[in-house]
Amino acid sequence: MSGPMLPRTRLRRLRERQVEDRATLDALLDEVLIAHVGLVVDGHPLVLPTAFARDGDQLLVHGSTGSGWMRAAAVGAPACLTVTALDGLVVARSAFESSMRYRSAVVFGVLRRLDARARNVALDVITDKLLPGRRAEVRPSTAQEQRRTLVLAMPIERWSLKVSAGWPDDGEDDRAGPAWAGLVPMRTAAGDPVAAPDLEEGVTVPRSVRAFIEARA
Amino acid sequence: MSGPMLPRTRLRRLRERQVEDRATLDALLDEVLIAHVGLVVDGHPLVLPTAFARDGDQLLVHGSTGSGWMRAAAVGAPACLTVTALDGLVVARSAFESSMRYRSAVVFGVLRRLDARARNVALDVITDKLLPGRRAEVRPSTAQEQRRTLVLAMPIERWSLKVSAGWPDDGEDDRAGPAWAGLVPMRTAAGDPVAAPDLEEGVTVPRSVRAFIEARA
Repeated sequence: MSGPMLPRTRLRRLRERQVEDRATLDALLDEVLIAHVGLVVDGHPLVLPTAFARDGDQLLVHGSTGSGWMRAAAVGAPACLTVTALDGLVVARSAFESSMRYRSAVVFGVLRRLDARARNVALDVITDKLLPGRRAEVRPSTAQEQRRTLVLAMPIERWSLKVSAGWPDDGEDDRAGPAWAGLVPMRTAAGDPVAAPDLEEGVTVPRSVRAFIEARA
Repeated sequence: MSGPMLPRTRLRRLRERQVEDRATLDALLDEVLIAHVGLVVDGHPLVLPTAFARDGDQLLVHGSTGSGWMRAAAVGAPACLTVTALDGLVVARSAFESSMRYRSAVVFGVLRRLDARARNVALDVITDKLLPGRRAEVRPSTAQEQRRTLVLAMPIERWSLKVSAGWPDDGEDDRAGPAWAGLVPMRTAAGDPVAAPDLEEGVTVPRSVRAFIEARA
């Protein structure tokens, strides 16, 4: 549901629309690897990028137990997790009408630290999201590794999703002019894998990495 | 300069390092098209994506004069502009050691509304950053278009830049094991241009668009 804190920005034009469909929200949250988390620290806003994953009706972020912002946030401070995909440049016949195609989700709530059992389940969910299939290719995490990791969760309850997917909306005069108009599609693309310098010869690129690259080539 | 609000996150590992080089900061700010702006609204954090540009020692964001968050921010509220580039997945031999390559700049300060003269100059800077060369291909903005646009500026004074550019850092036991390790490079890529549905036939893709795509293909 859209929360009361939502600004009116970007609703002015028809091509930028508020979407209330949870499936569209989930698709964005499952596609994008990085969220920007907002906190209030001493009255000032702080925005940091972080890897994240969706687990059903909650968002998960993880980090070191030594992470300052995560420890500060773990006590239930208000937070905002924003997830954005840039889908293209909308090149209009004028600078004024030019814009971007994007999808952007803003999730408001409180981050809470998961206990040990929930944390260990969550770590598998995060690994599965960031590189699907990888977990089955590597050894399980050790108890020490798990203990050194902090996982915070935020329920997906108050959220806003905006999708801009339109075309240039030039006026009649501009449309009669000589300028080009159109779209430059953009996406987060994966390139060819590079073996680590200390990798033994003959170790082939695993299925998880090949599938990840294929899906984002 | 790094400000006092900086969290200690991500400095734990050597491969994630704090960078104090202004040229590296500027390169990131000039490359990435979208910033995430953080504000405090009624004591709660709010994070929104926005196009932005660097103009020397300040960051510029623009929007409609009807934009709620911009109007709220224009009075000099504390803000945070975070700019992130995801450069790759670091695939280690264990889930625990896997991570990401990224560059992330956090700029703290106050957003202030530019007056009409500075705004008009700033709009050209923003257009030049988002699609270099485009401004010379289209008509100048009208006075009405300029009046309908709000531009906010934040000085680049208090900032933090983190760069993670390392390789997997597996322990000896894992290095002796059978698992692959390496990097999956990632980037924001531009695809082939698509003409607007209402574009007259025969209008060719302009030089600005061709150069943009070539630089990010």
